[in-house]
Formats: sequence, C-alpha cells, structure tokens
Amino acid sequence: MLSTFSSSISALLDARAEGYTLPAGLYTREDVFGADLDVFYRNHWIYIGLECDVPEPGDATVIDIGSTSLIVLRDDDDNIQVVHNVCRHRGSRLLDAGPTVISKLVCPYHQWTYELSGELVYAPHMGTNFDKSCRNLKTVNFKSIGGLIYVCLSDTPPQDIANLEAVMEERLAPYDIRNAKVAYQTDVIEKGNWKLTIENNRECYHCAANHPELCVSFVEQDFGYDADTLSQEDRAEAEEYQRLYEQRIKAWEAGGYPSAPVEQLAGHATNFRTQRLIISGKGESQTADTTAASAKLLGKMSRKDLGDTHLWGHNSWNHFMGDHAVTSMVIPLSANRTLVRTKWLVHKDAIEGVDYELAKLTSVWIATTDQDGELVGRSHLGVEDPAYEPGPYSPFTEGQLDNFATWYVERMRAHGY
Amino acid sequence: MLSTFSSSISALLDARAEGYTLPAGLYTREDVFGADLDVFYRNHWIYIGLECDVPEPGDATVIDIGSTSLIVLRDDDDNIQVVHNVCRHRGSRLLDAGPTVISKLVCPYHQWTYELSGELVYAPHMGTNFDKSCRNLKTVNFKSIGGLIYVCLSDTPPQDIANLEAVMEERLAPYDIRNAKVAYQTDVIEKGNWKLTIENNRECYHCAANHPELCVSFVEQDFGYDADTLSQEDRAEAEEYQRLYEQRIKAWEAGGYPSAPVEQLAGHATNFRTQRLIISGKGESQTADTTAASAKLLGKMSRKDLGDTHLWGHNSWNHFMGDHAVTSMVIPLSANRTLVRTKWLVHKDAIEGVDYELAKLTSVWIATTDQDGELVGRSHLGVEDPAYEPGPYSPFTEGQLDNFATWYVERMRAHGY
Amino acid sequence: MLSTFSSSISALLDARAEGYTLPAGLYTREDVFGADLDVFYRNHWIYIGLECDVPEPGDATVIDIGSTSLIVLRDDDDNIQVVHNVCRHRGSRLLDAGPTVISKLVCPYHQWTYELSGELVYAPHMGTNFDKSCRNLKTVNFKSIGGLIYVCLSDTPPQDIANLEAVMEERLAPYDIRNAKVAYQTDVIEKGNWKLTIENNRECYHCAANHPELCVSFVEQDFGYDADTLSQEDRAEAEEYQRLYEQRIKAWEAGGYPSAPVEQLAGHATNFRTQRLIISGKGESQTADTTAASAKLLGKMSRKDLGDTHLWGHNSWNHFMGDHAVTSMVIPLSANRTLVRTKWLVHKDAIEGVDYELAKLTSVWIATTDQDGELVGRSHLGVEDPAYEPGPYSPFTEGQLDNFATWYVERMRAHGY
Repeated sequence: MLSTFSSSISALLDARAEGYTLPAGLYTREDVFGADLDVFYRNHWIYIGLECDVPEPGDATVIDIGSTSLIVLRDDDDNIQVVHNVCRHRGSRLLDAGPTVISKLVCPYHQWTYELSGELVYAPHMGTNFDKSCRNLKTVNFKSIGGLIYVCLSDTPPQDIANLEAVMEERLAPYDIRNAKVAYQTDVIEKGNWKLTIENNRECYHCAANHPELCVSFVEQDFGYDADTLSQEDRAEAEEYQRLYEQRIKAWEAGGYPSAPVEQLAGHATNFRTQRLIISGKGESQTADTTAASAKLLGKMSRKDLGDTHLWGHNSWNHFMGDHAVTSMVIPLSANRTLVRTKWLVHKDAIEGVDYELAKLTSVWIATTDQDGELVGRSHLGVEDPAYEPGPYSPFTEGQLDNFATWYVERMRAHGY
Repeated sequence: MLSTFSSSISALLDARAEGYTLPAGLYTREDVFGADLDVFYRNHWIYIGLECDVPEPGDATVIDIGSTSLIVLRDDDDNIQVVHNVCRHRGSRLLDAGPTVISKLVCPYHQWTYELSGELVYAPHMGTNFDKSCRNLKTVNFKSIGGLIYVCLSDTPPQDIANLEAVMEERLAPYDIRNAKVAYQTDVIEKGNWKLTIENNRECYHCAANHPELCVSFVEQDFGYDADTLSQEDRAEAEEYQRLYEQRIKAWEAGGYPSAPVEQLAGHATNFRTQRLIISGKGESQTADTTAASAKLLGKMSRKDLGDTHLWGHNSWNHFMGDHAVTSMVIPLSANRTLVRTKWLVHKDAIEGVDYELAKLTSVWIATTDQDGELVGRSHLGVEDPAYEPGPYSPFTEGQLDNFATWYVERMRAHGY
Repeated sequence: MLSTFSSSISALLDARAEGYTLPAGLYTREDVFGADLDVFYRNHWIYIGLECDVPEPGDATVIDIGSTSLIVLRDDDDNIQVVHNVCRHRGSRLLDAGPTVISKLVCPYHQWTYELSGELVYAPHMGTNFDKSCRNLKTVNFKSIGGLIYVCLSDTPPQDIANLEAVMEERLAPYDIRNAKVAYQTDVIEKGNWKLTIENNRECYHCAANHPELCVSFVEQDFGYDADTLSQEDRAEAEEYQRLYEQRIKAWEAGGYPSAPVEQLAGHATNFRTQRLIISGKGESQTADTTAASAKLLGKMSRKDLGDTHLWGHNSWNHFMGDHAVTSMVIPLSANRTLVRTKWLVHKDAIEGVDYELAKLTSVWIATTDQDGELVGRSHLGVEDPAYEPGPYSPFTEGQLDNFATWYVERMRAHGY
C-alpha cells in the first residue's frame, strides 16, 4: 500500500494495461487530481456553458472551475466575452457565483471599474504614472460552437477544436441552440473522481438494471453488446434494431441531416464523438413516454423524428432532440467529488405551462443523473479500497471506456507526466 | 516545531523513552497514521466482529476498516466467509454498510454475480475468452476464536494467533459466544488517535473521578496502585481485596474455570491479555447494581458468580460475564478520529422485556464509553499542542500503557519503520 | 501552476516586488501557513487578551492559537498568570474553551492538581521517586501593557516590545484599561488568510463604498489620498481637514495627551503604530451619531473630545476613545480562515441600560467587522485563482500595506525562510 502512495504519476500511467480500468491512484490521488486539472481542465478545451446562459447585453454569469472563476457575459455589441473574475488590483472577486445583470464590472473592494470588454477605465488614487492599460481584466480563449461555449485556460489552446467546430456547427444549425432558452438546471455533486463520471456516461451496460426511466427511450444496443450473451430472442431483436438503425441513418442523411458517427480521440487533444441515435417508442424525445415534451420545437426544426443528436466531450455530454436538448458539463471539485451541471433547453419562445410542462421535460434525465451519481459514488469507494485492482472492460459494451482510458494516459504523457 | 514535522517516523520511534508517553508525532501525524494502518490494521490480526452478527445462512454485514470494506457472511453450509466488498469488474462496492440478507452477491453496477463463497458465476457481455475463475471475489484470512472473528489483511498473517486461540477457546467455551445474540450496538467516534483510545482502556487510574457507574462493579485496584499514595484505611481495603482476589482465583480454577492472567505482548505480533476479574457488590455483572441483567445466562453457564473474563487485544476489549458480554472493537478513522463499536451479547433465546431490560443491560458501558470518548478527545487536543512533551506513566497504575507503547515501537520496527 | 506549488518559500519571498501585493502562495499555501504560525505567532509578541478578561482572583479563560492552548488567569495575589493548557502527565487539556472560575487547576483525567502559579501539588500513584517540581505547568512569557496582554511563545522573545511598552503605558494611562469591563465580544471567522485581514485593516481606500456606518465618524483621509484624484471640492475639504488635524494634535499634545504618530516596523521584530486620530461629527466616539455611547467615561477620562487613540500590531487593532474602547485580535485558523475576536470595553462601573445601551455601543464596529469579513473572503478567493498576479498598491492610500508586506518578507528572512 505504501509503495503505491509513493510511486510517481508516471509509474501509475505505465501500470495501466490495455483493456483494463485505470490503476487506483489515477482515480484517487491528490497529486493526480492536480495534474488532471492542469492537463484536462487548463490545457484542453472544456465546455463551460451556453450563449443562451446570457441572452441579453449586460447579462453575466460566473463559472468556477477548481479555483479558477470565469465571467461569461454578453457585451453591448451582443458579443460573448469571457474574462477572469479577478480584479487586477488586489485580486478580489468581482462578481459572486450565479447570474446577474451589469453595465460595467465594478470591483466591490476599491471600485476599480472595467468595461464589459475587460478594459480598466477607473482606478482612483493610483497616481499619474499609473498605466491603466496594463491592468485590464485577463481574457480567456473561447469558442462558441453552435451556441456551446468552450474555453481553454492555456495560452496555447489545441488547434484541433476546429474539427469539432466544423462538424457540430453544421449538425447543430437546425436546433439554433444560440437562441434557445434554459428552462431548467440542476447541479449534482457526485462522490467520485471525474473520470469515473465520464466512464459511467460512456456505457449503457449498466442501464437495464439502473435506469428504468431512460430505458424507455434509450436503445442500449447502441452502446454495444455481446451477441453470445443474448438469448435467441434478444439476439433477433438486436439484429432487427441494427437493420432499423442503418435504415434510419440512411434516410436522415438523405434528408440533409448528417447522422453518421464522427469521433476524434486517439492522437488528438480535443476529444469528441457525435452520432445521431434512434429514440425508441414514439421516437420523438427522451421523455417518460417518448413523445415531445415541448410543443414548440427547437430552432428551425420542423420534424420530431430526427432522433437524438448525441455529443460527447471529455467533460460533457449532450442530447439534441427535436423539441428540447439536455446538456451536461462535468467539473471536478476534488479527487473524489465532481459537479455535474445539467441544463434543459427549449425554444426561446416556448412558455412553461403552455408549450411544455417542466415535469415531463426533465423527469427522465433528473432520475438518470441521480442514479448515475449513486453508481459513481459506489465505484469511487471501491476504487479507493486497497483490495481494488484494475478490472477488465467488456470488449463489447465498454470499448469506449477503454479508448477513453488510453486517451487519458496519452494526454497525460503529452503534458510531460 | 518545524523540525518535528520533518523528522522521519524512525526518528520519532527513537525518541520514545521508556516509562513515558509517546512523542507527539506518533499520535498526530498523518504519515504515522498511514504507517499504523499498514502495520497494525493490515499486517496484524484485528478483531472485526462476531459469528453471531450473521446468525443465519444468507446473513451478511459490512465492516469498514479505513478504506478497506469487508463482507462477513454466513454461507448456505453455515460457514462464515469474509470477502472484500469490491467487484472484480470495475471495483464497485457490492453491499452498503450494515446488515442484510442475500442469496448471491450481485453487483448493482453491471450485475456481475458471485456465490456466497465469492465465486464469480455471471458476467454478461465479457466474451467467450473471458475466464470467470480469475475474477472471484478476494477472500480474507480470518479466524473465529470462540465466536470472535479476527482477520488479517496481509497474505502472511502472524502465526502466534494460535496462542490466543488455545487460551480463549477454552475460556470462552462455557459462554458459547458463537450462539449468543447481539442485543444492542453503539458506535462512538472518539476525537483522538486510536492509541490514546487503547491507552485509556488499559488503566483505571482515571476511573474513580470519571466513571461513577462503572466503579460500582469494577475494582480499580485490579489495575494497580501505589500503596504509599493510599490512606491507611484505603490500604487496608486494598490488601483485603488482594486476599479475596487470590482466594477467588483459586476457587474458580479449582472449579474448572481458568482464571489466572495470561498475556502475550513483548516479542510477539499478536497482543492479548486475559484474566478473570472480580465483580464488586453482588458480584454478578457490570450493571448499575451489580446483579445480572439477563435472567437467561450465556451459553452453558449455570453460575452467576464467575466474575468477568476480561480480554484485551490491540484493537479490542471484552468482558464476558455469566449473564451477558460486552465487546468493543477499535477502528481508526484518521489520525485524530477513532470508531469504538460496542456490542452487548445475551443468550440467543433471551427475550427483551422478558429475560432482560435493555436499559439495565447497557447503561453502565454506554455511560463509560461516552466518558472515555470525552477523555480521549481532551488527551488528543493536548498531545497536538506544541507545549506537549511526553509525560511519565505511573509505574503502579499505568504499567500496561508503558508496555503497550514499548510493544508499539517494537512492532513498527519489525515492519521496517 | 505546478511549478508554483513546488517552489520553495524562499523563492516566493524573492518573487515579492516592492509596491505590489504578495505572490499568491504566501497567502494560500499550507507550508507558508505553518511558517507564518512559527514566525509571527510563536516567535513574535502577539496580543491575546486583556487583564480585565479575568477581573477577579480565580478567574481564568482559555485562548487557543493554532493548536496551542493558553490559560490566562488571575491568581490569589491578584497577579496575571499565563500557562499552557496541557497537563504534564499525559497531555490532557485542563480547561475547556471560555471563561471559568477556579481555585486550583485540576486535570479531569487523573486529578493531577496545580496551583494557580502552575506548581504541581498533587499527583497520586507516581511513587516516592517522582519529583513533582519537574512537572509544573509550562509558563508563557507575557507582558501586560496598559492592561493589554501580549505573549511570546518562544523562549527568546524580541526585546523591542520595550518600545511599545514605553509609548503605550503613557498613552493608555488615562483610559485605565486594566480596570475596564468587557461589555461585549464577537468572534468573526473570516474566510481568508490572516495577512489579508491585516491588509484590509491598514487602509481606508475601501471605506467609502463599504463602511457607511464607520464613515460617519472615521476620516478616510487619515489613511492617505491622491490629491489629483479628488474633485476641486473634495481637495479643498481634504486640505481643510489637514489643517484641522494639525491644530488638534497641537492642542492635545499641549494638554498633556501625546498624539503624534509613533511607528515601529522595518528593522524591528515588534510592529506597532499608534496615533491619535480625529473623530468626525460631534467628535466623541465611533458610534452611529458620533456622540459617546457610555455616560461614564473610561478610567480617569474627564473629556470626550480626545479623539481616537489608535493602536496597530501585527495581529491586532484598537481604538481607545473617551467613553469606550474597541479592541480586536487576529488568530489564524488555517491558510484561508482567520478568527477576528473583538471586544468592547467600558468603565468597570458602567451599567448596561443605565450608563450605556449595547446597540449604540457596538453597532458601528459590528457592521464594519462583518463588512470587512466579506471583503477578506472575496480577496482570498481571488488570490487563490491561478489568474491572480500581484497587483500594485496605491502609493497614496495603501502605503501601509506595502510597508507591512515588506516587513513580512523581512521577518520571514530573519527566521531563516
């Protein structure tokens, strides 16, 4: 046990075997957590929110990532800005957590005042030699891709975000997420490492026994299966589903809706995967009865039968459907605590009680997110146990986790660990 | 102060002077706590529970020791099993804390299913090449001694547990603890290091001023006294008691009840001491009035006048009396927090409200345990104070603590510290 | 980020630039916190309370500084004693936090008993060879200066406390703080480093926007201003105030009340500054309407117009006025939490409800202390942010902070960091 504690991070990365979960220390150690924040949350692009979090000029909201606090705001020219929430005088936080409306950014400590661009315009008692232009708020590299805001806290952000942008701008265009409305938001703190949160999201092996609500609309086989494990009846059903899926993809693509899987992982900094998936039952939406939750469809959508445009990143997952979207971001709080912030989006003009009911809109993913939180907590406790040793991923249902673990090690190596 | 923080554990062990309490760092430092867990809770035998915690086939209970979680269960052949509570797939906890009833061990994450022996019997989607026999639950070395379950988490458990077994199987036989019933259980978290908890238990120097309830049945002099400190009257009483004690021991031994002190400490891994002690007053039981709490005596006991068969381990203390037993285990939670779990045992057929009242059964040791928790907390705060320096043990009343501290250093040395 | 974590304390001290706030790590790192406790709270004189906290023989109170616990008491000869709250037997705390009345110090664990001087007088069962005189309670170097108790936990306390003593005994004499009464006390835990607490106290640049209650009686310009920043009107007012201040100082000094600033900082271990300041409005007291809160004046004071005798130390600030005094001590709890304990003093014979109302006495500094706590919390969060870099102090309004930061680095160097 002691030798594990004292081994280097590099030795832990060496110890990872293909096809197996990560060595315990990579999930549990504080020094690895610091390295993870540095590599994956500072030097990679991360998803932190939406343009529609700040729909009007002067709207601002604060997002904390570890000890980093960012202000996302919409300036008077209707442009998004992302600046550090740290006064350039003595470091005070400018804004508190949560949304607000502002005309300028005024530090409450000594009234240093910044334009919404971050430019310092007022700093009394600093003397005539003081050069305000050296003390503008620090800005942050960001990209809005189809209305989803990605930031990179490093000065040299990975260029391969361009691929994500090219693919998703086109796929998200019909949903017009830039002009959607956040109808609901939840914060769930999972008692586990952020990588367990991501692993949990990348397989549906656990769905049948744990997600009764989601399984009404979700097709477990989308995430793989071992034909030999299935009964004859189940195998026939799976094959039937496979035919249906190929048919639909073809039809969607023919209709001008790109649907085929696109993935960027090994060999790349920016990890994403998108694919248009079938929704079961009535096929409209991930709701309790699989019909649309909102009568007003998203953006310029005219059809409810376009399935679920699914998008993964290394700190996010998203489902874009005809009537609404569900989008989750993952923010590590410590080696064993992770924030999952989930938002439900509808058309900006959709009215609660008229066009949609909140309960129908949110019930499936609220239940699913809570269930996943429990599972991640159980996993983390086990991984912390000295009796834990890496276990085998299913080659059929957990291949994506194996790939993620491999990518994780590769990216750590790329950053000198 | 800083130099203390940076000294090695070995230097702290060197600094311990015979006859004196341990250097502060051995009680307070996190690295020492890690070493303690490794040496005393991983590489020594520890007491973790009772056969009668799981009286029926299918009964299971979870015990956590640091980040290690164990399942103690009774299988269908009526045998005790102890397995690690860690799924061999992705590490998830199988069972939650506390008692439960099971027919198989099913992991809630992906339904991997184990027999009560730990054998993996179901793991879907793993492919035809997957060898289930390599993924049985890990088992734990354990011994039931008179119904008390001891485990050793190391693969090379100390052999000298055999002496404890030989002595205690005989002494415990009449009490038939294997077939007792747990009538009540408390968990007290003491705000101090586990060694302060043990030290507190090994002397009765503090009893007169702190344990009014216990002192009715307990004989303080059993733990030693300085005759010169006593008044003439008290000295006469102590000498009278000494004569009485010798008389009783002789009578008990003659009646076939081994009673003399047996101790294994210096030079041994497994530390224990047992001795049959007198109970004051009516002499039956450690209750508020010293009479038996349960009308139905334990096991095959036919007499109430056999005193208190006392048993210490390095993480436990026990009192076996004619009518009931009290058994406590000590589990460190952090350098400054320690769980004391206490159970009150009666005959398995004794019925609450008929054969015994819970209040009478438990009141003395509930009060005593709470009082001890307070004292341990006070001690720990003082030991953390930079003004603390090791103080002298009383050679009369605290010799057992001195011996324990010496054994502690010896065992740390034996494990390379 | 990682390189910052691993740099030595010495490198952080090197990195501090004159005129700028400290590098982040000096506010946030745990190792720096340990060094701060060692240097500034162990090897310097710190203010820990008042003689009038223990007005009668047998009165005792416990003060915790980090893990050090001190007993301040008044013995039967009416002398103040300060002893460590650690029994010399097994280290148990003798007294709980807060005030109490005692005739001897009896350890609750084993009844070791000490005179109020700390002398061990009773320790049963220790044997005839036991030398009680080697086990007296450890005493602490302390000085009462005008009734304010300063301690130094080191065996070699800085000698230059003599200058503080010489200056303040004279200035405090008329207030007779030794015989004052503590009318009220608050504990506020600020969520920031203790140096941010001290910095916040040493400037009034933040007052206008944050302290509406205090600004009624406080004169912001006392703490400096940039004339070029002011409007013509404000500048005229500031100059008028300057003339008034010089006039008053001259008049006070002529009347036998020393008033000019005296400061000891660079080149000295013991940091203090005192100065008699003007109170605005009616000029009597720091109350909501600037009139005296207590009809009975402090000590031998016969005038209400003697302004505010202000005293700073590196862990305290004080305001002595004609009718009452406000005194605050600063105790670090962790790198990011700091206790500010504030006491309001009145004449010992002043009666609540007759001579003074508690609300009027305390409202201004309760509000101010809460507001400052908020500001310190905001600052600390910002300083922890990787985007923080040291910012410029105003040469006009924050010169005292610059000096304090310089002194801080100098003292750390003097102690080998």
